[in-house]
Amino acid sequence: MAQDDPTQLPQVLQLHFLKAWDSPLPQPQVIHSHATSVQVLLSTAFEIPITAQLLQLLPSLKLLIAPSAGLNHVDLAACRARGVRMANSPSIFAADVADMAVGLFLDVMGKISAANRFVRDGFWVSRGDFVLDRREASIVGLGCIGLEVAKRLEAFDCKILYNSRKESDVLVICCVLTAQTRHMINKKILLALGREGVIVNVGHGAIIDEKEMVQCLVQGEIRGAGLDVFGNEPEVRKKLFGLDNVVLSPHKAALTADCFTNLTDLAMANLEAFFSNKP
Amino acid sequence: MAQDDPTQLPQVLQLHFLKAWDSPLPQPQVIHSHATSVQVLLSTAFEIPITAQLLQLLPSLKLLIAPSAGLNHVDLAACRARGVRMANSPSIFAADVADMAVGLFLDVMGKISAANRFVRDGFWVSRGDFVLDRREASIVGLGCIGLEVAKRLEAFDCKILYNSRKESDVLVICCVLTAQTRHMINKKILLALGREGVIVNVGHGAIIDEKEMVQCLVQGEIRGAGLDVFGNEPEVRKKLFGLDNVVLSPHKAALTADCFTNLTDLAMANLEAFFSNKP
Repeated sequence: MAQDDPTQLPQVLQLHFLKAWDSPLPQPQVIHSHATSVQVLLSTAFEIPITAQLLQLLPSLKLLIAPSAGLNHVDLAACRARGVRMANSPSIFAADVADMAVGLFLDVMGKISAANRFVRDGFWVSRGDFVLDRREASIVGLGCIGLEVAKRLEAFDCKILYNSRKESDVLVICCVLTAQTRHMINKKILLALGREGVIVNVGHGAIIDEKEMVQCLVQGEIRGAGLDVFGNEPEVRKKLFGLDNVVLSPHKAALTADCFTNLTDLAMANLEAFFSNKP
Repeated sequence: MAQDDPTQLPQVLQLHFLKAWDSPLPQPQVIHSHATSVQVLLSTAFEIPITAQLLQLLPSLKLLIAPSAGLNHVDLAACRARGVRMANSPSIFAADVADMAVGLFLDVMGKISAANRFVRDGFWVSRGDFVLDRREASIVGLGCIGLEVAKRLEAFDCKILYNSRKESDVLVICCVLTAQTRHMINKKILLALGREGVIVNVGHGAIIDEKEMVQCLVQGEIRGAGLDVFGNEPEVRKKLFGLDNVVLSPHKAALTADCFTNLTDLAMANLEAFFSNKP
């Protein structure tokens, strides 16, 4: 397994393990040359959408394994129309994504990245305001990731509000992108969060109205943000680069050795179940 | 209260609240001019050691309130000889110091500060190896801070080894500096920690043989370090500045609004008890 480079993760597995990633041919060509025989597709990269057009190229496809929490790269209607079964298990990423969410949270609250930068620049800055204890955190998206985040934050004596409309100091966004959640975190919600408010996003960039968020951060209308996801990845709004109250991470919460192990275990179990006709 | 600038915290409180920090005189002069009447000294800054010489200047001193976990800035023998009573309560800092310890830990493990730097420099680096789940952490120093750290790490499914000699992947140093703990983390222990090993230090810089640690970090003999304390503060070894596997923080774990509130509450309670002759 190419654990260090997730873009090289297998896109196509066959029962006899045609290793697309070992082929000298480019991946689309590998898919084309085996198109008629592919029965199972393992989708791990958002950059390769599972479209109706791709499904047409794969007439034998019966199972799509797409373990990510978000499925907005998959044309679910087309899958249903073709009778392609779905195997989806976001829980395999939950612990590591939750670790990152809390890591980003602590970093923003404790200004750890900023302090690290200051010390390296030769400043010994002792200004601190790490006031976690009295925080109330709202977890937006109470799936398996949200529950893992809650478990962690409770150990920090954070009061957890689940999908609450009550105002809180911290929003941890763990939900998936749908038509309903797109730009759900708008200017009104940002302003309600207030000057001490912090946003952590490990869900999807487009859940936040990013332009409004950047403006709130620049103007100090919210306190800070820890972001692992962005609206137009891998592009990041340049205005964020100058802000000390922001911690930026390149959508890597789930890119861990544990997640890769879990992913291959899951894929193997799904394949075994599928080809032995178990549900 | 000057919450933003801890160096301006009151060094001297009197029952009628002579506010040393409001005086136009420099602090040593304030102490001198009120030396004979000072009955209680509140010591919050390591930079101002409580020496036998200082005690001689304060003939009426009966109580020293020094809430920090470490007391190596206090000449305890001289206090005992003079009959000065001590009020010490490191627990008021425990939660916030533990927050910082875990924040540093997550930052080193998840390379959050490094990722933040890379993204700001225009790179979108998706290399990640946040393998917290399978970690065993040894907490060195099982006081109130160590217990708070344990509580938090347990929520991350970390296995906690208390003051264990068994080899573990992570050392979180929460103990105070004494003759026994000075340079306790030496080359032998660092090498036993191994190439996947991580050190977090929120105790005292001199507990680690810093020169050896820097060498291990430079040579990749340990994986990383999250450091809030240093052997020769505020000087930081320049070799650390070039390392991506290190997160540096300017001894600010306890410099929080919560800690200041706790500190003043504690000081008031101690003063009240002292002047009403309660134990």
